[in-house]
Amino acid sequence: MNGEPAARLVARESRASRTEVVVRDVVIGGAGIVIMAGPCAVESEEQLLAVACAVKTAGASVLRGGAFKPRTSPYSFQGLREEGLALLALARERTGLPLVTEVMDARHLEAVLGCADILQVGSRNMHNYSLLEEVGRCRVPVLLKRGMSATIDEYLHAAEYVLKGGNDRVILCERGIRTFEPSTRNTLDLNAVPMLKHRTHLPVIVDPSHGTGHDWMVAPMACAAVAAGADGLLVEVHPDPVHALSDGAQALTLDGFACLVRQVAAVAAAVGRHLVPGTVSHPSLISAIT
Amino acid sequence: MNGEPAARLVARESRASRTEVVVRDVVIGGAGIVIMAGPCAVESEEQLLAVACAVKTAGASVLRGGAFKPRTSPYSFQGLREEGLALLALARERTGLPLVTEVMDARHLEAVLGCADILQVGSRNMHNYSLLEEVGRCRVPVLLKRGMSATIDEYLHAAEYVLKGGNDRVILCERGIRTFEPSTRNTLDLNAVPMLKHRTHLPVIVDPSHGTGHDWMVAPMACAAVAAGADGLLVEVHPDPVHALSDGAQALTLDGFACLVRQVAAVAAAVGRHLVPGTVSHPSLISAIT
Amino acid sequence: MNGEPAARLVARESRASRTEVVVRDVVIGGAGIVIMAGPCAVESEEQLLAVACAVKTAGASVLRGGAFKPRTSPYSFQGLREEGLALLALARERTGLPLVTEVMDARHLEAVLGCADILQVGSRNMHNYSLLEEVGRCRVPVLLKRGMSATIDEYLHAAEYVLKGGNDRVILCERGIRTFEPSTRNTLDLNAVPMLKHRTHLPVIVDPSHGTGHDWMVAPMACAAVAAGADGLLVEVHPDPVHALSDGAQALTLDGFACLVRQVAAVAAAVGRHLVPGTVSHPSLISAIT
Amino acid sequence: MNGEPAARLVARESRASRTEVVVRDVVIGGAGIVIMAGPCAVESEEQLLAVACAVKTAGASVLRGGAFKPRTSPYSFQGLREEGLALLALARERTGLPLVTEVMDARHLEAVLGCADILQVGSRNMHNYSLLEEVGRCRVPVLLKRGMSATIDEYLHAAEYVLKGGNDRVILCERGIRTFEPSTRNTLDLNAVPMLKHRTHLPVIVDPSHGTGHDWMVAPMACAAVAAGADGLLVEVHPDPVHALSDGAQALTLDGFACLVRQVAAVAAAVGRHLVPGTVSHPSLISAIT
Repeated sequence: MNGEPAARLVARESRASRTEVVVRDVVIGGAGIVIMAGPCAVESEEQLLAVACAVKTAGASVLRGGAFKPRTSPYSFQGLREEGLALLALARERTGLPLVTEVMDARHLEAVLGCADILQVGSRNMHNYSLLEEVGRCRVPVLLKRGMSATIDEYLHAAEYVLKGGNDRVILCERGIRTFEPSTRNTLDLNAVPMLKHRTHLPVIVDPSHGTGHDWMVAPMACAAVAAGADGLLVEVHPDPVHALSDGAQALTLDGFACLVRQVAAVAAAVGRHLVPGTVSHPSLISAIT
Repeated sequence: MNGEPAARLVARESRASRTEVVVRDVVIGGAGIVIMAGPCAVESEEQLLAVACAVKTAGASVLRGGAFKPRTSPYSFQGLREEGLALLALARERTGLPLVTEVMDARHLEAVLGCADILQVGSRNMHNYSLLEEVGRCRVPVLLKRGMSATIDEYLHAAEYVLKGGNDRVILCERGIRTFEPSTRNTLDLNAVPMLKHRTHLPVIVDPSHGTGHDWMVAPMACAAVAAGADGLLVEVHPDPVHALSDGAQALTLDGFACLVRQVAAVAAAVGRHLVPGTVSHPSLISAIT
Repeated sequence: MNGEPAARLVARESRASRTEVVVRDVVIGGAGIVIMAGPCAVESEEQLLAVACAVKTAGASVLRGGAFKPRTSPYSFQGLREEGLALLALARERTGLPLVTEVMDARHLEAVLGCADILQVGSRNMHNYSLLEEVGRCRVPVLLKRGMSATIDEYLHAAEYVLKGGNDRVILCERGIRTFEPSTRNTLDLNAVPMLKHRTHLPVIVDPSHGTGHDWMVAPMACAAVAAGADGLLVEVHPDPVHALSDGAQALTLDGFACLVRQVAAVAAAVGRHLVPGTVSHPSLISAIT
Repeated sequence: MNGEPAARLVARESRASRTEVVVRDVVIGGAGIVIMAGPCAVESEEQLLAVACAVKTAGASVLRGGAFKPRTSPYSFQGLREEGLALLALARERTGLPLVTEVMDARHLEAVLGCADILQVGSRNMHNYSLLEEVGRCRVPVLLKRGMSATIDEYLHAAEYVLKGGNDRVILCERGIRTFEPSTRNTLDLNAVPMLKHRTHLPVIVDPSHGTGHDWMVAPMACAAVAAGADGLLVEVHPDPVHALSDGAQALTLDGFACLVRQVAAVAAAVGRHLVPGTVSHPSLISAIT
């Protein structure tokens, strides 16, 4: 690892200022904090639209939702795939929110590009260099999740693959690393936030849903992420988490998400930032997290 | 591990309310956030008093400082030992701040009890059950650091040893765990904060100095810890970090610490809490962390 | 993770006997131990043929060599790609050894299938489910390496993807996991050998080269792997490791490999097995490992 | 960690030859492989004598047994303590086997020294520098187990504490490290064997019982340890594992142990070594491990 050539395009010193990734009118990596929210997996039109409208109202500025789902077991729900993309396109049109969704395979790129404003490369594909090269050739922002046991160095090198391909609109996302601790699904590594901001000019967001695996941990860790300097959050929301087809234990309810937004807004203000797009009306009425 | 008898005395359900550990007039585990600060190791009267006065002025409510230092190498500075305790007693008297210092060996207990208001059991001794039983017999609060690869379960069992001995004034402290990531000294595990608050009635504080190993990461991670729900912080401060006899890379300067206090105060307010004892005059003038 | 549907096709109970993967006349997973050896990356015709002939003479029964190389940095040597495949085809023809080589991208499959007797899916792609599904549709054996932080459970589920696709000729390969220990490149996890043999009917081999990262550790760990029950080894060999274009520190010289084969043959005999194809003439002349 | 002063007394270069620790007539660290065996915890005279006689007959040359047991929970069986020491003294006298037993607290040293031929410092106390200094002042061999997340560097520094105190009769023992893998109790790190033999002149043994936590994994991993170059083994044996008061899942039956000894003897011969004291009569009749 130590002998690797430097990841020069992502290095903070390579730019005069931090990179701001602009998606329609949403600026990621500026003074504002961007909340991306939605279901883990698209399950139905009803489910998706319910979540999409609710998260928009509550203050999200990007919609997330998975159509292609990488699952540990081949017998688990793999996503609605092309049908899911069509539903995402609908939700995006209805809400006006830009959309981030995962691409798992270069051969799906064309279909995904038909509706995605941001291409997500998931944790399991952070080391899939063929896919990184492919999204590097696209002209669409890329949300690149940290591999589950990727060092900061390896993560930056993975981003370098995308920039080297010609696409410098990369958003980094800490989503929990693998450690010995069994009480959480992963160990959300917030140290990565100041470390990445120190080493690269790219925006850094945090996924407290996958990072912890417990709905009741999402809000405190989201607040912590923003306090640590994160530029945004990626949060899973479901109208009925108990019956979610994937990852229900970590999904917030619609109300839970609205509550998280208020808490995060208060913390953002405390560190001199604000939520994008600033639609949250009364961030002052915040009760303590605990 | 799974078959362990339950750690019932530390369990949140075992108490009607959260435990507040009161040290003189400082309440740890209440609505207030307690900042404990001071040098990693006591090096000299001059060094210690400079830090002690500065951290008091800046807003710390407990003084920390090591006289007995557990060091990886037997050739590293091992602390001033008894002489260090005498200097700590002096600093405590001068500043009026209660003192937390480490005890590494049951045979030093009497000497340490001569000046300590809180006994620290370090990370390396979290599994030293003889020592845990011994501090369990004391009538002095115990700051028990998480072992460097202790699971939350093992950590709670270690605290149980102290409570079982009759001492329920235990303060837990997350200080970084061991992972594959080499860019930080340890991986500060802020997930432990909501998880421990969920499972136990004991107060939970965080050590962002050992947890990260980099001075420039201490403030953002301290803010994150408070946003995640921590009841306090343990911070290393040195008048001249470059020449510190131990752990200089992670020590804040006196100014750096004052700046951290202001940032933490703002985040505390955002989560409905405040700094103890509330001596920071103008917490509103906070610049962004980054 | 715990809630995953069972990986039933790979489960040991699903078969009356262990799976033997036959590649030409080489049986992998029977009483014999199969040694696969060759360079990390194909660099030139001269280098490849020198290694291929030497490892055949020394006792290897499968040739390994990388044409497509997944590298942490986009600026590192990425392999000779199509040109490398042509050289591998040549080496295979000259030596008569079956060939294992990595496929990183489904779009390269056709080209790789032109020369490969065994398709290798590397550690970085163990979670690349699209690729797993694709090789599951092939009628060629698959050497599936364990992901660098994959649990045994996740690893078995990854193999299940291949079997579910219709291809049950899967060979598992432990190649080192990621831990806190910095003195080795990875931590070769030999516990995986008896654990995998306990849970699945598939053959299990070990890569002590990537697993340790140090040439001088390869022979003792290869012997240990066979003593633990491994069905084979995957070993990197280079005529001039100091000038290797990738991973030279872990490559054996031609002589070093011949020595390893003799040591492994002795250990194989001690556990009631033998080397495939049994061409090593004098396995009795073994000196101690240390 | 990197800035630590070198651990010079343990360094291989500091001695002309490897250290052989002689305990009565047993040489640890020479050409012979030493098997230390016995129950995890002493439970009764009957249990201890049954195991002690059986392991002697089967080929063990040192008796192990715990009187003081460090347990995760304060409510778990903590060992028979002084009564256990008396039973160990009896078993040692009856069998003539030298005895290794754990000391958890410097204040127990005198009592333990009354019967122990080798002092064991357990994994949980590897960082207990006070205890290391104390056993460094003794004139009895020390079996120092690797901490559960200690790096090789830290482990060597811990040994250095003992040698610096004047006691150079230190035996190192790999017993499994903590990783993300949940299917084994720990991850037995056999890489540590060649690495430690490379860096220090001290003998290195392996504990496959704690290292794996599964009785059926003990024999293959014991064989692997010897193949990797270990100088000995530490194995848990119980006449009735199902009813053991601690760690029954990893204890071998008396027959299981006898079988392990035969397997290990064959592997030892394959790597040019033999069992100490050579009492196993027919090592040739070995069936395959699986």
